[in-house]
Amino acid sequence: MRRHLAAAIAATLALATASADAAQGKPTPSPTQLLDASKPSEWRTPNPDNLLYMQLPTGRVVIELAPDFTPLHAANIRTLVREHYFDGLSINRVQDNFVAQWDDPASDDDHPDPAKLRPLGKAKKTLPPEYTRAITPRLPWTPLPDGDVYAPQVGFSEGFPAARDPVTGREWLTHCYGAVGVARDVAPDSGNGSSLYAIIGQAPRNLDRNLAIAGRVLEGMPLLSALPRGPAPMGFYTDPKQRVPILSVRLASDLPPAQRADIQVLRTDSATFAKLIEAKRNRRDSFYTHPAGKVGLCNIDIPVRDDGKPVMP
Amino acid sequence: MRRHLAAAIAATLALATASADAAQGKPTPSPTQLLDASKPSEWRTPNPDNLLYMQLPTGRVVIELAPDFTPLHAANIRTLVREHYFDGLSINRVQDNFVAQWDDPASDDDHPDPAKLRPLGKAKKTLPPEYTRAITPRLPWTPLPDGDVYAPQVGFSEGFPAARDPVTGREWLTHCYGAVGVARDVAPDSGNGSSLYAIIGQAPRNLDRNLAIAGRVLEGMPLLSALPRGPAPMGFYTDPKQRVPILSVRLASDLPPAQRADIQVLRTDSATFAKLIEAKRNRRDSFYTHPAGKVGLCNIDIPVRDDGKPVMP
Repeated sequence: MRRHLAAAIAATLALATASADAAQGKPTPSPTQLLDASKPSEWRTPNPDNLLYMQLPTGRVVIELAPDFTPLHAANIRTLVREHYFDGLSINRVQDNFVAQWDDPASDDDHPDPAKLRPLGKAKKTLPPEYTRAITPRLPWTPLPDGDVYAPQVGFSEGFPAARDPVTGREWLTHCYGAVGVARDVAPDSGNGSSLYAIIGQAPRNLDRNLAIAGRVLEGMPLLSALPRGPAPMGFYTDPKQRVPILSVRLASDLPPAQRADIQVLRTDSATFAKLIEAKRNRRDSFYTHPAGKVGLCNIDIPVRDDGKPVMP
Repeated sequence: MRRHLAAAIAATLALATASADAAQGKPTPSPTQLLDASKPSEWRTPNPDNLLYMQLPTGRVVIELAPDFTPLHAANIRTLVREHYFDGLSINRVQDNFVAQWDDPASDDDHPDPAKLRPLGKAKKTLPPEYTRAITPRLPWTPLPDGDVYAPQVGFSEGFPAARDPVTGREWLTHCYGAVGVARDVAPDSGNGSSLYAIIGQAPRNLDRNLAIAGRVLEGMPLLSALPRGPAPMGFYTDPKQRVPILSVRLASDLPPAQRADIQVLRTDSATFAKLIEAKRNRRDSFYTHPAGKVGLCNIDIPVRDDGKPVMP
């Protein structure tokens, strides 16, 4: 056994220690054990119309769009992708403990010249904000039991971490790690999906309900989170050479099936997902002397597998 | 003005928009404005006995120890540092959205050979856990008003994010971004400070009260958080060449004053810090349509300046 398991065991929960807790007499199954025992029906294959493949020089980032929460943004992003809008653009900003953001680098000048901006083509320039949506029984809702600092209720809907306010009857996606948001100017309708960011640090939940969330990174987070931080304020790169080129962005549904990744996501309304949450809330093994008894919304990993292999969280 | 301010303004709060909110009629001062108006007495110069300089090939990481919470660990780490224990060791593990961990790479073998391990010298091999301490009026306590998923009370003590349980009378440091924890084996007393980790992602608060927190990174987080993630389970590097060498670790107090960094940290019991918290809770400007009204413990940056210049969060 490795020395210094420390944080190791604690977070990834990757090791199957599962030794009996003396006081409780019950071992906590490891995530690996729980996933190994999951049923095929507990996994979903995302709709290829909602899957973006963003190819960087270092590998592929896979993003799942969330059209039930931000339908107009999903449609506009699909339009941009089909125009190959993002091909040749770049990641222009990486701010530590916050976001990696990609868009047209010409837009990042203090006084951008409209003539230099890549045209949006058939995509819309402005969109209704879509920061929240009406709660509907049509969408599944898996509540978490331990409360939240920012919202009256939190849980999961269709594979996305989300929040609800029963008083207003609204629900919204939350800025957890890996969330893909729509950057905008000051005007609430100025976001259109041509500039996107991924959360790479502590969840900045104060952004919830102030920005539209287009989806979530399913695979390839380290290709964004481990990028060099930009030296300028807000993490902008100062030298164009520092920018990370985007080779292409494609919709899975626009590729021949043979070229699509075989990606599956554990259903957030499945029994196995509920067991994973409970194991994280009350982990009992020889390492843990004090099970938390609670879990925060953005502390829960949603398991993904690619070609049958676990995507490392 | 930059296009796509989006997340930009939102998180760093770096720009002084400070335009009046129509409904409230009150602008929210920006962090820059608040810090510019701070008094010299609101800043503290950390005790050089508590400051570690960890020199990497890419730059310097500065860590402040927390001897009021983990005194035996602070003493043992000082002993190790004065023996130059860490010089020539390496960062051997970087797990995405979790930790960067440094220690003796020989300890990471599955069956480490004791003969190959660097001797601890006069440092103790085991230590009492120091996961929590008794609440004492001797230490300042700045409570936060918005609750917490994991602990009955949260706030700041002596510049560190912390939690309290009035029922047990205990308090403890929390695993927020930048926290430096003491890795250990399964036995609670098996940590000694020779293996340390820094939190580089969403705060894994389930580790609270299960591991000792030795301190916090004040400067240089991107040198840890932007490192390549290790390909092995739990983020271990597989090739020794991937390991990031530690050139040296020194105590500030062991250096001539001219070689010490001029680091100051905003007092967490200062009026300006309270104003920063309130500005983050209820940001009102032209960008924000929905002030959060709340703030989480690990969402608050504690301002640091080096030679009078702000350390980028």
